[in-house]
Amino acid sequence: MKFWKFFFKNKKKCQVNEINKIFIQKIGKDNLYLSTCKKVNLEELERLCDSVGWVRRPLKKIKFALENSFLMVSIFQITEANKRLIGFARVTSDGSFNATIWDVVIHPDFQKNGLGKLLMNQIVKELRKHDISTITLFADPEVVKFYKHIGFIIDPDGVKGMFWYPI
Amino acid sequence: MKFWKFFFKNKKKCQVNEINKIFIQKIGKDNLYLSTCKKVNLEELERLCDSVGWVRRPLKKIKFALENSFLMVSIFQITEANKRLIGFARVTSDGSFNATIWDVVIHPDFQKNGLGKLLMNQIVKELRKHDISTITLFADPEVVKFYKHIGFIIDPDGVKGMFWYPI
Repeated sequence: MKFWKFFFKNKKKCQVNEINKIFIQKIGKDNLYLSTCKKVNLEELERLCDSVGWVRRPLKKIKFALENSFLMVSIFQITEANKRLIGFARVTSDGSFNATIWDVVIHPDFQKNGLGKLLMNQIVKELRKHDISTITLFADPEVVKFYKHIGFIIDPDGVKGMFWYPI
Repeated sequence: MKFWKFFFKNKKKCQVNEINKIFIQKIGKDNLYLSTCKKVNLEELERLCDSVGWVRRPLKKIKFALENSFLMVSIFQITEANKRLIGFARVTSDGSFNATIWDVVIHPDFQKNGLGKLLMNQIVKELRKHDISTITLFADPEVVKFYKHIGFIIDPDGVKGMFWYPI
């Protein structure tokens, strides 16, 4: 089956909406595609998160979180026989001023190939379409360097990221 | 006019919804009321933000941001003759795991009275009702101490708040 046929056969599940003007584009080689479609298969996402060792979370909560995310960007490897989710990130936002990026993940088999940068650049591009100017995230120590490299800044003018956790 | 009459006379503009089970409660004395009603008067909010010297933002963008906020908490001073917005904060969230608090403001005439703490405690309480466990914010240097005092932590396990701004 041709790629476009493959992708569009579930048209109902993945329609272009006002947030997702461009919802899929081919990136580089290896049949990799970047998508801003908001319909993400939960089991596929679970497998991707498993691949990087994240603690499992209740599917119902994940479903609700995805529904309430402002933006999602996915990377798929698509062959005639298979469509595999290999990268993902999502964003909460007020759609106007502020956005926060969460759950950035690239499958280990595809890391160190610039896909993380592509994913993040697409997020910034989509948010800028909405004139959102404060794009934030919380970076684990091991990925701070990566985010710095793509233009994110730590503690600008002494602004500190702070957390409240239940005890 | 009695307070409840005053507040309920525009019932259409301030109804309880699934997020705002408790949408108003009296706090302390001085006719102060805490509300989680999502209908906020833009001009009132503008005046409050002016009072702390914030740069004005386009009303249309503010309206959209409020509509896309997951939670808003306001403090009003309500007399028989007047209802005045004197405190405000709002939250973006996926409604499930993560939330970020923005635009925390208390009118200078009412600062140093514990209202900021009341406002923040209410936000945490509301978010915990949804079992949201990662509650975040970005604090300017002069308010870091305040947020620490009410239980927020800077850079837990080396996690860094990072920003991307348009150049």
